[in-house]
Amino acid sequence: MQYVKIKDVIVEQIESGQLSPRQKLPAERKLAELFDTTRVTLREALSLLEAEGRIYREDRRGWFISPAPLRYDPTLALNFADMAKLQNREPLTELISAKSVLADKHVSALLGLPAFSDVFQVERVRYLEQRPVVFVKNYVIPALTPTLLDCDLSSSLTDIYREQFGVRYSEIRYRVSTTSLFGNVAQKLRATAGTPAMLVQRLNYDKHAGLIDCDLEYWRHDAICIESASKLLD
Amino acid sequence: MQYVKIKDVIVEQIESGQLSPRQKLPAERKLAELFDTTRVTLREALSLLEAEGRIYREDRRGWFISPAPLRYDPTLALNFADMAKLQNREPLTELISAKSVLADKHVSALLGLPAFSDVFQVERVRYLEQRPVVFVKNYVIPALTPTLLDCDLSSSLTDIYREQFGVRYSEIRYRVSTTSLFGNVAQKLRATAGTPAMLVQRLNYDKHAGLIDCDLEYWRHDAICIESASKLLD
Repeated sequence: MQYVKIKDVIVEQIESGQLSPRQKLPAERKLAELFDTTRVTLREALSLLEAEGRIYREDRRGWFISPAPLRYDPTLALNFADMAKLQNREPLTELISAKSVLADKHVSALLGLPAFSDVFQVERVRYLEQRPVVFVKNYVIPALTPTLLDCDLSSSLTDIYREQFGVRYSEIRYRVSTTSLFGNVAQKLRATAGTPAMLVQRLNYDKHAGLIDCDLEYWRHDAICIESASKLLD
Repeated sequence: MQYVKIKDVIVEQIESGQLSPRQKLPAERKLAELFDTTRVTLREALSLLEAEGRIYREDRRGWFISPAPLRYDPTLALNFADMAKLQNREPLTELISAKSVLADKHVSALLGLPAFSDVFQVERVRYLEQRPVVFVKNYVIPALTPTLLDCDLSSSLTDIYREQFGVRYSEIRYRVSTTSLFGNVAQKLRATAGTPAMLVQRLNYDKHAGLIDCDLEYWRHDAICIESASKLLD
């Protein structure tokens, strides 16, 4: 299969350092010429590289070499900025929207709320080295944090919960699955519609086992590596 | 975008029960006719459904509706058969190969071994309701389990470790990322080359913090949903 060979050549160029993280690849037409192949075969090779997290595409800008993924342990309440800095990355958070909404079917089910309950919806995009890597939707139960929408929501939510409301995560339940990006989420991540993604859903409880909020995190899949550890009982 | 509409129609048919789990979809030509669209547009819709884990393709057999994913907590030492049965699924394990090999670069690094160390490599495919869903490669350090290759390796490895060698998992470190399927792994999972997949890598330690083995699990991504929970310290 010719496209697998092309993929292997590009992987080798990445591993040997000839291609560096964040570097832009030449245009598809040019690449097809370089590899003396068709656009169709070239695209198959690029799709594979994308599936393996080696390259990513930004809408209308082209293909880029993926930097190392952020190592992310969903069992920790470590906020994004601290996690990124510990790994020598450059984090940034952009607040997209914060408002009170009626919980839809999916969110009601996640939070165990009756239909049409009011929840706070906080949407943010997080960047590493100026690249948008994850779109996060938080749905917060208003009871514990009634004046949340008055806070500066571009800073850490867990910090706000703790400092403003004396509430902190005491148990986290999470789920990891694969999905694809669409609409506003795709656009804010500079992704073309249908780009594969990793979805991390977390339910966050306080020390009385009451739900504080849930978050739906749509990650560019090349940008993240879930890592965790656990001790077992005998 | 027409392909998104087609996708939505099929999702609705799945959710309303008109299409049932494991049901085969009509041939692509037929589907294109039904939706009054081109093969290209239809394929885009099918790719989206595949990315979202709604359908899966078996090589040369066509597209099928995905059953509910298996909920998998990588922090537990629960074996595959017990996990499947607890969820009313029908598990089966096929032993592909078991032999002593020289650890390659990746495996040496994972296990912290010098290059060219001997390890036991056990390859197995696991099925749910007769569908192959995961290809598992275990690399086992021979010191703790020297006669492993004489055991019946189609049964649970963790059971064998415990019953034959008095060794049990005491800490698990795991990593979840996305990849794509190739070669023997793709073939045994009845997948076309390049099918997106979820890779779960685990390092398993005994109570003295020594490594027992590592496993590389190549999951059909629609067949699995990683779920876990953790308590946080104050």
